[in-house]
Amino acid sequence: MSRPPSSMGEFDLIARLFAPLTKGAPGAHGLRDDAAFLQVSPGHEMVLTTDTLVAGVHFRIEDAPDLVARKALRVNLSDLAAKGAKPVGFLHALTLNDSITDAYLEKYAAGLATDVAAFACPLLGGDTTSGPGPLTITITALGEVETGKAVLRSGAKVGDILYVTGTIGDGALGLASLMGELQTFAALIDRYHVPQPRLGLGLSGIASACLDISDGLVADVGHLCRASGVAAVIERAKIPVSIDARAAVAQDQKWWERILAGGDDYELAFTASSAIPETNVSVTAIGRVIAGNGVTVLDENGESLSLTVTGYRHR
Amino acid sequence: MSRPPSSMGEFDLIARLFAPLTKGAPGAHGLRDDAAFLQVSPGHEMVLTTDTLVAGVHFRIEDAPDLVARKALRVNLSDLAAKGAKPVGFLHALTLNDSITDAYLEKYAAGLATDVAAFACPLLGGDTTSGPGPLTITITALGEVETGKAVLRSGAKVGDILYVTGTIGDGALGLASLMGELQTFAALIDRYHVPQPRLGLGLSGIASACLDISDGLVADVGHLCRASGVAAVIERAKIPVSIDARAAVAQDQKWWERILAGGDDYELAFTASSAIPETNVSVTAIGRVIAGNGVTVLDENGESLSLTVTGYRHR
Repeated sequence: MSRPPSSMGEFDLIARLFAPLTKGAPGAHGLRDDAAFLQVSPGHEMVLTTDTLVAGVHFRIEDAPDLVARKALRVNLSDLAAKGAKPVGFLHALTLNDSITDAYLEKYAAGLATDVAAFACPLLGGDTTSGPGPLTITITALGEVETGKAVLRSGAKVGDILYVTGTIGDGALGLASLMGELQTFAALIDRYHVPQPRLGLGLSGIASACLDISDGLVADVGHLCRASGVAAVIERAKIPVSIDARAAVAQDQKWWERILAGGDDYELAFTASSAIPETNVSVTAIGRVIAGNGVTVLDENGESLSLTVTGYRHR
Repeated sequence: MSRPPSSMGEFDLIARLFAPLTKGAPGAHGLRDDAAFLQVSPGHEMVLTTDTLVAGVHFRIEDAPDLVARKALRVNLSDLAAKGAKPVGFLHALTLNDSITDAYLEKYAAGLATDVAAFACPLLGGDTTSGPGPLTITITALGEVETGKAVLRSGAKVGDILYVTGTIGDGALGLASLMGELQTFAALIDRYHVPQPRLGLGLSGIASACLDISDGLVADVGHLCRASGVAAVIERAKIPVSIDARAAVAQDQKWWERILAGGDDYELAFTASSAIPETNVSVTAIGRVIAGNGVTVLDENGESLSLTVTGYRHR
């Protein structure tokens, strides 16, 4: 372990800022041990996912540190949500550099504390190091699901309906708004900074396949289709979009492409053979699973749209 | 997820180089899902540890890529060993940059494959991203231990004997040898590149406290003492050193300090109230636990040594 460059030593940093995020979880041992411990509920299996966020690539170093921390945790919780899992804790590996101040870290830890409480998801362990590169955050989220009841990418069947949660495109349009490509839509920017992991939907036993939309609707539905050995048709007119996104496309139809292919939604796309029971978030049928491969998007006239970009690439 | 800069796309990279490392583990789903799944053995709890290695800080970019990969996995397995846990798999988050070639990645994956086999520890999931900074590797190792039987840092009692495994100082002297500070000792350089996690010692139920020596013997025994609320006395003459390390100190006594305070040993330091049964690696009593705080090292005449550096700081 190397020492962080802030005026706090590594041990101070851990004790002052991160140990409180364990919320007394017994397996965290106050972050004073080499490892974390976790008891899995009887009849359940562990679900584990890890995502790295690099400053300048996945977030901007000028973004508010509390929002960066919350996004880093939330994109991982979104993967747990896609599997129908319940979060039980997380590990946090942070690579600092000389430009990261104590004030930055304090705000960062405060943001993490907000979501530790919001999702009842304690910090269980981690590593703090430093290097010459950009601030890099790797979070490993731990969840549990009833044994054998996880929803995979690979279960979609011909004839299934394709659903999405929430509204699509807000994350990508929020980034466009933040970058000045699009006028300022505060709600979209907020969606980009603080995605909402769709936990607790009860998809286990209902969805045949599921993933979260991080690379873009068309690209991610493509991933689901490839894993399942099927194809999908999406009707653009059925895609749920927010009022702000609708305002953007009313100004310029070009934003449709960003809605279809932009990333950072962190909504769920899933397939099911039947109608979906009432859930705590809106769920919309946007298409269907067919035989073949690839994803076709139909416009209002039933014509196939040709997309120049099918998946968002982070810079 | 962003795309790596190598000529392989992210999906190719995962399918070609990393999917084989899952060894068919059912919870890995061939790395084609968003998350990994793991069933914990009945009567066991999960043990989790994460460590980040940054090029230019924790390893040199000119080091052989297969050795870098093996070290990244082994330092994590060493933490599991210190808790008396059995490895069951790992997650692998890799941040690449434009200078990392396909050839580098192929060698890297081959090294990882060697140790996946050696430790029967499959890859279960991960993330591959890229950025402008140095190659950064975060591994999260997953283990299991009988519920309630983990060995913590915090259980050392006054009167316990202090033990270490293997030989001490080889890692730090290996680095000195590699950097040209010390003549070339191939065996020490090898120890630095490929540490040996001391798994399977059966310390559970025997050791009262344990950790692995990554920051240096004196610093790490200090961590154990602080967590346990005790102090320790180490007799320098009892510290097990290799033939090469003995040759180094015969040339210049100054290398003693590196042996005592250098890092990268990844041997275990542990305390126990009784003698230790025969194990698969040499175990040496080097001191004892006393009341108070801090670590005292006594020389051959029983005089307290003053150390100018008590813990190794990675650059």
